[in-house]
Amino acid sequence: MSLSMYSASVPVFRQVLGSLSAILDKAESHADLKKIEPQALLQARLFPDMFPLLRQVQVAADFAKGTVARLGGVEVPRYEDVETDFAGLRERIGKTLAFIDSVPRDAIEAGAGREITVGTGANQRQFSSGQPYLLHYALPNFYFHATTAYDILRHNGLEIGKRDFIGSF
Amino acid sequence: MSLSMYSASVPVFRQVLGSLSAILDKAESHADLKKIEPQALLQARLFPDMFPLLRQVQVAADFAKGTVARLGGVEVPRYEDVETDFAGLRERIGKTLAFIDSVPRDAIEAGAGREITVGTGANQRQFSSGQPYLLHYALPNFYFHATTAYDILRHNGLEIGKRDFIGSF
Repeated sequence: MSLSMYSASVPVFRQVLGSLSAILDKAESHADLKKIEPQALLQARLFPDMFPLLRQVQVAADFAKGTVARLGGVEVPRYEDVETDFAGLRERIGKTLAFIDSVPRDAIEAGAGREITVGTGANQRQFSSGQPYLLHYALPNFYFHATTAYDILRHNGLEIGKRDFIGSF
Repeated sequence: MSLSMYSASVPVFRQVLGSLSAILDKAESHADLKKIEPQALLQARLFPDMFPLLRQVQVAADFAKGTVARLGGVEVPRYEDVETDFAGLRERIGKTLAFIDSVPRDAIEAGAGREITVGTGANQRQFSSGQPYLLHYALPNFYFHATTAYDILRHNGLEIGKRDFIGSF
């Protein structure tokens, strides 16, 4: 199997979002066991002007969704940010995984030759092809939010390790 | 330019390690300006049993070095962990960048077909080819430590944003 737009995106998102979902399970059980108010974790931040855990997870999932949609040349599905608890976040991840698995593999491969635009107005950014978009923009952003979600929980005492983040593949 | 082992590794490491180096510059200036003891940042951790900033940077750089060496089929250079300050860390990153640029591109591409073994003893892990190694092990590990380095500085009040992490490419 050669390196391809598909292999560098969908299975990677599946791995890390799967890890994140399992980590959220652990966080919920931990909160339950220690009688911690779930919102104390879901709204925890590393600094006042950073996103809290809940938003970090939403944004990580959105990078997976947006990346696969743009590479595949299909419309980015719009998910409202309505989640308020761990179960909601796991559902959001599940919905995201179902979506990225629904985009045809050959459409994603064709993304290598697709011009891609993200953002609007002053934040608009254009990529001449899917490769720089995936490797230099989408994946760094995705990992940034996924790791920060992990770091927030670790900072709040959840007993997880890097193995939980890397997950299985 | 098609997606390849080289394009998914060396330029990505260069982008993020370059960002990290610039962020360390900002951290050093910030410490200087605010009369913060540099070790207060370099030894900062998000939790007592996590690596401090200094070690996160060393490990991130080591993932870049080890990945490119293993993909390229050359010996992993051994760098002693002697850094104690910001200048040392930037030097470590510079040395790492010079090394990854020195491995011939075609040797890295050939890594797609190379069997790769990491770790020793109970922690040994084998990959049937360079692709799962790069996409599912090396890059997640690299981003994990690079993002956590950023998160530690952000948590300690350094005024940086995601833009500093994504950097230029």
